[in-house]
Amino acid sequence: MKKSEDFGEWYNEIVELAGLSDKRYPIKGMNVWTPYGWKIMQHIDRYIRHYCDDTDHHEVLFPLLIPENEFSKEKEHIKGFDAEVFWVTHAGLNPLDVKMLLRPTSETAMYPMFSVWIRSHADLPLKIYQIVNVFRYETKMTRAFIRVREIHFFESHTCHADFEDAERQIRENFEITEKLMRHLCLPYKVLKRTEWDKFPGACYTVGIDMLLPSGRSLQLGSIHQYKDNFSRPYEIKYEDEKGEHKYVHQTTFGMSERLIGAVIAVHGDDKGIIMPPDIAPYQIVVVPIPAKGSVEEVYSEAKKLAQELKNNEFRVHLDLRDVRPGNKFYDWEIKGVPLRVELGPRDIANNSCVAVRRDTGEKATIKRSELQDRVNTIIASISESLLEKATKNLENNIVDATSLDNLPEKLIRVGWCGSEECGRKIETTTDRSILGNDVSDASPRKVKCVVCGKDAENVVHLSKPM
Amino acid sequence: MKKSEDFGEWYNEIVELAGLSDKRYPIKGMNVWTPYGWKIMQHIDRYIRHYCDDTDHHEVLFPLLIPENEFSKEKEHIKGFDAEVFWVTHAGLNPLDVKMLLRPTSETAMYPMFSVWIRSHADLPLKIYQIVNVFRYETKMTRAFIRVREIHFFESHTCHADFEDAERQIRENFEITEKLMRHLCLPYKVLKRTEWDKFPGACYTVGIDMLLPSGRSLQLGSIHQYKDNFSRPYEIKYEDEKGEHKYVHQTTFGMSERLIGAVIAVHGDDKGIIMPPDIAPYQIVVVPIPAKGSVEEVYSEAKKLAQELKNNEFRVHLDLRDVRPGNKFYDWEIKGVPLRVELGPRDIANNSCVAVRRDTGEKATIKRSELQDRVNTIIASISESLLEKATKNLENNIVDATSLDNLPEKLIRVGWCGSEECGRKIETTTDRSILGNDVSDASPRKVKCVVCGKDAENVVHLSKPM
Repeated sequence: MKKSEDFGEWYNEIVELAGLSDKRYPIKGMNVWTPYGWKIMQHIDRYIRHYCDDTDHHEVLFPLLIPENEFSKEKEHIKGFDAEVFWVTHAGLNPLDVKMLLRPTSETAMYPMFSVWIRSHADLPLKIYQIVNVFRYETKMTRAFIRVREIHFFESHTCHADFEDAERQIRENFEITEKLMRHLCLPYKVLKRTEWDKFPGACYTVGIDMLLPSGRSLQLGSIHQYKDNFSRPYEIKYEDEKGEHKYVHQTTFGMSERLIGAVIAVHGDDKGIIMPPDIAPYQIVVVPIPAKGSVEEVYSEAKKLAQELKNNEFRVHLDLRDVRPGNKFYDWEIKGVPLRVELGPRDIANNSCVAVRRDTGEKATIKRSELQDRVNTIIASISESLLEKATKNLENNIVDATSLDNLPEKLIRVGWCGSEECGRKIETTTDRSILGNDVSDASPRKVKCVVCGKDAENVVHLSKPM
Repeated sequence: MKKSEDFGEWYNEIVELAGLSDKRYPIKGMNVWTPYGWKIMQHIDRYIRHYCDDTDHHEVLFPLLIPENEFSKEKEHIKGFDAEVFWVTHAGLNPLDVKMLLRPTSETAMYPMFSVWIRSHADLPLKIYQIVNVFRYETKMTRAFIRVREIHFFESHTCHADFEDAERQIRENFEITEKLMRHLCLPYKVLKRTEWDKFPGACYTVGIDMLLPSGRSLQLGSIHQYKDNFSRPYEIKYEDEKGEHKYVHQTTFGMSERLIGAVIAVHGDDKGIIMPPDIAPYQIVVVPIPAKGSVEEVYSEAKKLAQELKNNEFRVHLDLRDVRPGNKFYDWEIKGVPLRVELGPRDIANNSCVAVRRDTGEKATIKRSELQDRVNTIIASISESLLEKATKNLENNIVDATSLDNLPEKLIRVGWCGSEECGRKIETTTDRSILGNDVSDASPRKVKCVVCGKDAENVVHLSKPM
């Protein structure tokens, strides 16, 4: 399995070998989260919760099922999702009076309640989030974490007194994204979608995009400004200081288990996945390497070493299986444990141990007296260099183009005047999608539209989305 | 709202006033977990995870949907659930080839995978758990946390080489139950169900039961010995040391959001709910009580006090709302925060503060220099006395009876010979259910069957279940 030769095959194989997910469940696109994969997701969720709580979002849990009549209130929204929802039509032995669908996202579950909860300006901003399963009937080929039909999903929903406060929220969401992605060591782009690619019902949509080794882009999440597009049909109004009744302005922010897919795709190598230390189920695996006659001593000393590392707040696994050390190395390399610590009789005699980095293979002999400091430093350095390497790789795969001919399978930047006509032409000519312009780009260069040649302010990114 | 006058009404009102759950969601029996209620559940889940991880269970997450053909493999099981499952019959605009149901519990989702995962005795025991939403189409009157149609649910599933190892697992589940219930300050009974009341497909079922103030019993969870009843139809086999192929023995253990219902019902009083400190979203609320001219000083000192308590690992809320202290007292009493700490100008001058227990109303003046120790002691004492009071109350509501006439609305104990004939007679005569004998009762007394008068070994509990 060579990652560089066939990324798609490599990805599927590595997900299985690393024990991240089991796709043998008898429904296509609905996979079992096995213990190792689920632990990774829980660490990611922990960071999401932390940053949301930290910014005064409150966690809630809404019902899974949405009655058809609530779902149908926002016309664009239902048009966008109609073809991909699962319908519950019967309960027990009887048909239901009102059909219900499994949430594909929770706007239409939450907004009827928002309309009850919000009365006055004192109730604003309302900032809530939930981490749940959502369902989409994907017809394209499924792929673990990247395209599934039951999706582990984070969604925050906020209501504001006006457009400007909703915009402030969107900037806060950018900050949360940045903090989260640092733990995953993932570089990304925040790109504003075209009018025809925005979320059904949104005023505008911003995608959080990354690049796969195959050259395709992967949307990891999205942030939407709804303005009052939903608050009007759902009657979410508040009384302002002057006693006037106004519609709230809303935003949403969503991310999914694709974050794990991105971690696998970006950091992994031919030996397996590589876990960023902050989300690794085990940050360190301790492997005893006994010689003949020293088994008991080495195992007992390895236990002490593992405990010492645990006491220093590392997540540690001590591998005492009755197999050869070489097999243990191999297994934990596939699973991407960031640091392996080996301990043999000579190490014990020297009061030291050997630490091997998963990302670079670098070995270091560490004095036991310096264990904590050295391991801390190495772990931090692994995170840094994973991000650095990935960032360099993303930059190397962004290509500025002035024509639409012979584009490589990379993230392409071109000038676009902003007209739908030229935009559509860019997309059909290149068989790529316009992901949009980089919202973090404070000083866009003056360019020409790649189609009509007019002056353009938009430098937009093109790719084939996954 | 008097708890003693109309428990049912009191319960519904207090759930709403305390902001634990919102039942205005437009599907009956599917309620919204509001932030305060969800925080309580998350604390409970945290303990469940802790005790499961501690006993080498691994957390997983299985798909929500189960194909009809997998569901139908164990005949008793499907008979038991047939009338109360929700069916997904359409995806997008098309009918599905194979209908799928929303899990009412996950046996039939997990066991096809177990049959793939388990090969040899080295794979045993397999011990996994998940915390998920399950669905049951309840036709009885719904009630927040106690009878809902989307249920927040913990379930562990284990596979063992033989019956005896499965029995060992069941004893471990009793220990986990005991540890968990201590955090909730809840007394309970572990009662072995009759043959006709066991879980569909089980060899035997043990209920975890408590008593509501209304005199009805509430089943909080259950533990099942399946023997090989499921492993046969689902073909879950292993190769033992001698190369023979054998069916595994299985157990399950489930508990639900009813745990919150029990906490509300048992500990609450006419002023509101009372949260056991270990699962309280806030263990302490700090209320500044400024006098004229001292507002700024008192608020600033209250902030310091709250921070000091937070630094000592307490979950603390500082109430700086612009309403009168009396209103704050009232609100936090409804929400059941275990300890209120008041701070006024005189307290500041004396380097002290006033602590008021929610459960007893007791007030104590505490020197700031002794803050941590004193608060620690009071919080521990609240937990102890909640459990003690509840235990005494349960004991006072257990009545030994030698006839079936004029039974009070309590937990009744009678002798039963064990025959189905006498058992059914007990149930129909009294309009109560036999919950079963106490499995922790090591030395059952010699009694006579309350129906036939024969010597009986079973002292069984009767009640009207909620």
